[in-house]
Amino acid sequence: MTQSATKMQWKAEACCGQARAGHLHTAHGTIPTPTFMPVGTAGTVKAMTMDAVRATGAGIILGNTYHLMLRPGAERVRKMGGLHRMMDWSGPILTDSGGFQVMSLGALRKLDQDGVTFNSHIDGSKHRLTPESSTDIQHALDATITMCFDECPALPATPERLESSMELSMRWAARSREAFVQRPGYGQFGIVQGGTERDLRARSAKALTDIGFEGYAIGGLAVGEGQELMFSTLDFTTPLLPQDHARYLMGVGTPDDLLGGVERGVDMFDCVMPTRAGRTARAYTERGTLNLRNARHAGDNRPISPDCDCLACSRHSRAYLHHLFRANEILGPMLLTWHNLAYYQRLMREIRAAIVNGTLPQKAEELRASWAAGDW
Amino acid sequence: MTQSATKMQWKAEACCGQARAGHLHTAHGTIPTPTFMPVGTAGTVKAMTMDAVRATGAGIILGNTYHLMLRPGAERVRKMGGLHRMMDWSGPILTDSGGFQVMSLGALRKLDQDGVTFNSHIDGSKHRLTPESSTDIQHALDATITMCFDECPALPATPERLESSMELSMRWAARSREAFVQRPGYGQFGIVQGGTERDLRARSAKALTDIGFEGYAIGGLAVGEGQELMFSTLDFTTPLLPQDHARYLMGVGTPDDLLGGVERGVDMFDCVMPTRAGRTARAYTERGTLNLRNARHAGDNRPISPDCDCLACSRHSRAYLHHLFRANEILGPMLLTWHNLAYYQRLMREIRAAIVNGTLPQKAEELRASWAAGDW
Ligand SMILES: [Zn+2]
Ligand SMILES: [Zn+2]
Repeated sequence: MTQSATKMQWKAEACCGQARAGHLHTAHGTIPTPTFMPVGTAGTVKAMTMDAVRATGAGIILGNTYHLMLRPGAERVRKMGGLHRMMDWSGPILTDSGGFQVMSLGALRKLDQDGVTFNSHIDGSKHRLTPESSTDIQHALDATITMCFDECPALPATPERLESSMELSMRWAARSREAFVQRPGYGQFGIVQGGTERDLRARSAKALTDIGFEGYAIGGLAVGEGQELMFSTLDFTTPLLPQDHARYLMGVGTPDDLLGGVERGVDMFDCVMPTRAGRTARAYTERGTLNLRNARHAGDNRPISPDCDCLACSRHSRAYLHHLFRANEILGPMLLTWHNLAYYQRLMREIRAAIVNGTLPQKAEELRASWAAGDW
Repeated sequence: MTQSATKMQWKAEACCGQARAGHLHTAHGTIPTPTFMPVGTAGTVKAMTMDAVRATGAGIILGNTYHLMLRPGAERVRKMGGLHRMMDWSGPILTDSGGFQVMSLGALRKLDQDGVTFNSHIDGSKHRLTPESSTDIQHALDATITMCFDECPALPATPERLESSMELSMRWAARSREAFVQRPGYGQFGIVQGGTERDLRARSAKALTDIGFEGYAIGGLAVGEGQELMFSTLDFTTPLLPQDHARYLMGVGTPDDLLGGVERGVDMFDCVMPTRAGRTARAYTERGTLNLRNARHAGDNRPISPDCDCLACSRHSRAYLHHLFRANEILGPMLLTWHNLAYYQRLMREIRAAIVNGTLPQKAEELRASWAAGDW
């Protein structure tokens, strides 16, 4: 992280095909893109200290508005000095709008033209989110990047459902923008919706760019449509977005998804996969995935990955990690989450370097061959 | 930790009443005493990386033979390069003999003159521990300090039960010593038994000193007898032990127990309290204990302790820790275990400094008044 920005801006450094390397300048420092944002749902990246998150090379993290508004509450976070102070993270933080998680986690949710009323999955208490309240809450959280409040239908969905949902989301985007308080180096991202429909995506992108945001997210993907359909949707969606703004593919994904996203012009990603997998003994490596509970690791004194400099790989063996997971020791999730996030960050650094060097096609081929080759 | 020792030796630096400050020289470095050993039951100090354990100032840790022999197994640990290598801990490690935990955790246990047969609490598999096999296992684990295999009755117990148990333990101590393989800087501690009976403790101490060990532990206390009886037993037991060897009070205790133990001539302690409490939201501080789940901490932006330099206190508020425990986030136990171990280590450093300065009585009075004063 370097000096803070007076204006949130993404600046290109190099391109390679559709792929872009750049920097996002924010009030909380500058981060190189493409970048992967570890997910800190409830004000903590699960099983990680922030020193550990920093050690993986992460530059920006994500927080979930839905979880934080319910517990500890937005006003409580504000009184703790905002998310950065509360979590001990001085870099940029992006918060989602809460809309997606209300739809997946909230109980008795009721959507109307103005917003969503729902009951907390924690204690059943009644809450309401609107474009205005979501934006206000993200302000109280002190989010560096605020996301527009939108509605996102599960796929597959009928074109009619996708269209009405997209149109609602665009009306909400205008209201979210209206409610957003500009501050130096802070920004707000619009979210392109429209499912897998090209013309809906085009209309959505036009509506958002007409409003004008500091960045543009692609929503409504990675919701069950499969990688092929996600990639083909990206193929026609990213060209609809401004060249000079950051693009963020929400909730994605596997290492292979990230590579495919970058190749299609995406700059930012977030996903619970590396952290969730870390708690369930699943390791991501340059040679695919491993399940450390598997008995074949019980006597294996090699590290998870010979090329990884994370705490798990530099100090411990697979045999030890296997033991920790078998014994349900907290250190297992701690070490493996660290490894997985370190792998994701290393992957993004390698991809970025290849873009800068103009060698992304070769690098992509190498990465895919290595993932396919399987464990050492 | 400084240079390794060719012979395990405890050397006095200063005394203050019965209390002693000294150094224990071992193959894995020299540690100042009095010292508190964090418990790493199954090859991990629960919820802590070893870097975090080091950061608390811990110099020596404890491992549990019972747990490690069952999972991952002593031979497996040996093949991982021993406990130090497996856990990433280059300092000294003391392992218990397994006897105490067989009696508290093992199923269908059957005691005979030669040893104990029992079923694993994990998978029901049948195992046997004898003075010889316990000593061999601790050797395979590469324990810096090996403990004698003994039998420890719960208190209260009849004098007859205490006597026969003590006598059995002394025969087992001789066999444990026979089985112990001397290596430079490694050592074995005998364990004084005899419950709260002065003459039994005296006979036990005589039996052990006749055999000759690198250090002497006081066993059979902190098993339900209460602090008063524990202290009065220590009052007549520590004077029975050689002045020029380390003394270790097993399984003790609260901060107040540690202080009382040091005042009665004890040099080494271990206990699961600070780590277990850290996982259940209970903080140890210089002003007594706090329960961070308590609602009164929900909006408290102060650290747990203003004088603690642990990660929890230097970067986070009580309000954040309260949130983490309410949300069942792993970071709660991680941060609070760190704090509790840091407090225990700071307490031992302060007590040691007071011994060296000849001001232990004043320091003890201060500490007790502060604990009694309650939270800030
Ligand atoms: Zn690693
Ligand atoms: Zn602390």
